[in-house]
Amino acid sequence: MSLVNQQIQLVSRPMGEPTHDNFKLVEVPVPELQDGQVLVKHLWLSLDPYMRGRMNDGKSYAQPQPLDEVMIGGTAGEVVASKHPDYAPGDPVVGMGGWQLYSVVDGGQRGMMRKVDTTHVPLSHYLGAVGMPGVTAWVGLNHIIAPKAGETMVISAATGAVGSAFGALAKARGCRAVGIAGGPEKCAYAVNELGFDACIDYKAHPDLKSLSKALKDACPDGVDGYFENVGGMIMDAVMLRMNAFGRIAVCGMIAGYNGQPLPMANPALILVSRLKVQGFIVSEHMELWPAALKELGTLVGTGKLRPRESIAEGLAAAPEAFFGLLKGRNFGKQLVKLA
Amino acid sequence: MSLVNQQIQLVSRPMGEPTHDNFKLVEVPVPELQDGQVLVKHLWLSLDPYMRGRMNDGKSYAQPQPLDEVMIGGTAGEVVASKHPDYAPGDPVVGMGGWQLYSVVDGGQRGMMRKVDTTHVPLSHYLGAVGMPGVTAWVGLNHIIAPKAGETMVISAATGAVGSAFGALAKARGCRAVGIAGGPEKCAYAVNELGFDACIDYKAHPDLKSLSKALKDACPDGVDGYFENVGGMIMDAVMLRMNAFGRIAVCGMIAGYNGQPLPMANPALILVSRLKVQGFIVSEHMELWPAALKELGTLVGTGKLRPRESIAEGLAAAPEAFFGLLKGRNFGKQLVKLA
Repeated sequence: MSLVNQQIQLVSRPMGEPTHDNFKLVEVPVPELQDGQVLVKHLWLSLDPYMRGRMNDGKSYAQPQPLDEVMIGGTAGEVVASKHPDYAPGDPVVGMGGWQLYSVVDGGQRGMMRKVDTTHVPLSHYLGAVGMPGVTAWVGLNHIIAPKAGETMVISAATGAVGSAFGALAKARGCRAVGIAGGPEKCAYAVNELGFDACIDYKAHPDLKSLSKALKDACPDGVDGYFENVGGMIMDAVMLRMNAFGRIAVCGMIAGYNGQPLPMANPALILVSRLKVQGFIVSEHMELWPAALKELGTLVGTGKLRPRESIAEGLAAAPEAFFGLLKGRNFGKQLVKLA
Repeated sequence: MSLVNQQIQLVSRPMGEPTHDNFKLVEVPVPELQDGQVLVKHLWLSLDPYMRGRMNDGKSYAQPQPLDEVMIGGTAGEVVASKHPDYAPGDPVVGMGGWQLYSVVDGGQRGMMRKVDTTHVPLSHYLGAVGMPGVTAWVGLNHIIAPKAGETMVISAATGAVGSAFGALAKARGCRAVGIAGGPEKCAYAVNELGFDACIDYKAHPDLKSLSKALKDACPDGVDGYFENVGGMIMDAVMLRMNAFGRIAVCGMIAGYNGQPLPMANPALILVSRLKVQGFIVSEHMELWPAALKELGTLVGTGKLRPRESIAEGLAAAPEAFFGLLKGRNFGKQLVKLA
């Protein structure tokens, strides 16, 4: 019996916003397993902002996504056949399987795939709070910002996969956690479900002055640490409220992903407030992952972090869900349910 | 006999570029010395870009310069009368005497004044290479950038007091040192006298693309450390050439001191290149001064650092010389010779 795989390939590079024309859904045969290989059936595909950057051809921290190949992406699924002694059919696994229904993985290659325990943590959360996004929040908070108890931590895109974890981690460090999110529903969720002390609806503050005032109200002692997911005016507004010796972890600038670079309005604040502004990529801090995953798994397993998911149904829905992610239409971790 | 002091006061705050109307030269009596006090005759007044920031009333890292009081400023001079046991007439001293001919200093107050050794280092250099500007270069290089041998270090305003010292220190660390300065004369001096490996004349590169290309030629292995004195387009151009994990020490943004904040064109490069951009103020790192001054004194004393000076004659010339400093008209450390 030969299985048929479906995959979504990138067939052209977006100019500005990506469109359906940039993608193609194709059917390809699943190759026969060789010794040492494992066949994984994907149950969940993760959609993440970094994917937009990979679609460009320019210089960046990673190789561009090749054209006419399956789109890169994190996946969670189960082993359906194995010719590697460490894996057996039924094992729940997470890996970088891409935008497709099946992948064949070399079971001996470190870092490509790992088995996970779904006793206390649902499988899909290994793509969010207990996966790359959660570890991203952990590294930004602990390694770049290095918070002290009593300080005020702010994060944009607060109800997303990274933001949810950041809020729980900041509270666990004894900090005041303030989120920025789009719309009253997300803000209510951030405070009521995620444990943020306050959340600012940036859509209610369309100019710098108004947003900066809202931040002042939400952060009466100023801002000591800021986790940047967005860039643009939100970053400018937070910079106005940073305390002396504040730290900004730059993880994403989603506001500028689809077009011209977004400027920083007043970089002289870096000097005036003696800020440290540092970019980082979570995959360059592999030594921190075990400790991060352990803490995040405990937070989720004990119910202290209850991340929300936005679920699109079926592989064909992935591009549209991805467009929505870039516009903030998702509410929580954006996933595609593949089976 | 009562001495008459002359001083320049700030009498109004500049809107944009400062003008002569912002200053007033006044005569005031020198007060009688009290026990523990020292009377210093100023021979040299230091002019520095930070003074422009102090003239504003807004939030910054230091208190604004008060109106109708003597302008703040570093001075080098000699003791002419002393009622403190640590000081005797004739002692060469440096301190923060301000824009005036004499100052009365409390000899017991730490950090206000120190005696210096002029055997191998000319007195005026204690306001430049072996003073605050030199230590600024030292702290930015060693504490913020933390260079490794073989890396490439770039500094703007390369022939100024900070830049001169930075070049010598970077070479002493085994780095490639590349300067940015205004005009062929300054660039020739940077390479021939200060020991920079290359120097880029930013006036010959009026747009971002051209300047960025010149940086690429001068830094074939990219830029690992950048010391920012200027801001604006020069910073944007250097950011395009930063290597992964590059460090930017933000010391000044003189290009924006007189007007609206200058934006940073593409802050997403902080993420793409995983940069650390950190502002600092030399007076907040007093623990580093002794080691810095020792190294800088040795560099000057042994002729490895031969800083150049721009000298204005007489206290009344200070405002015009300061305007020139803000426009880059000085060539080397800007001083006013007071006697």
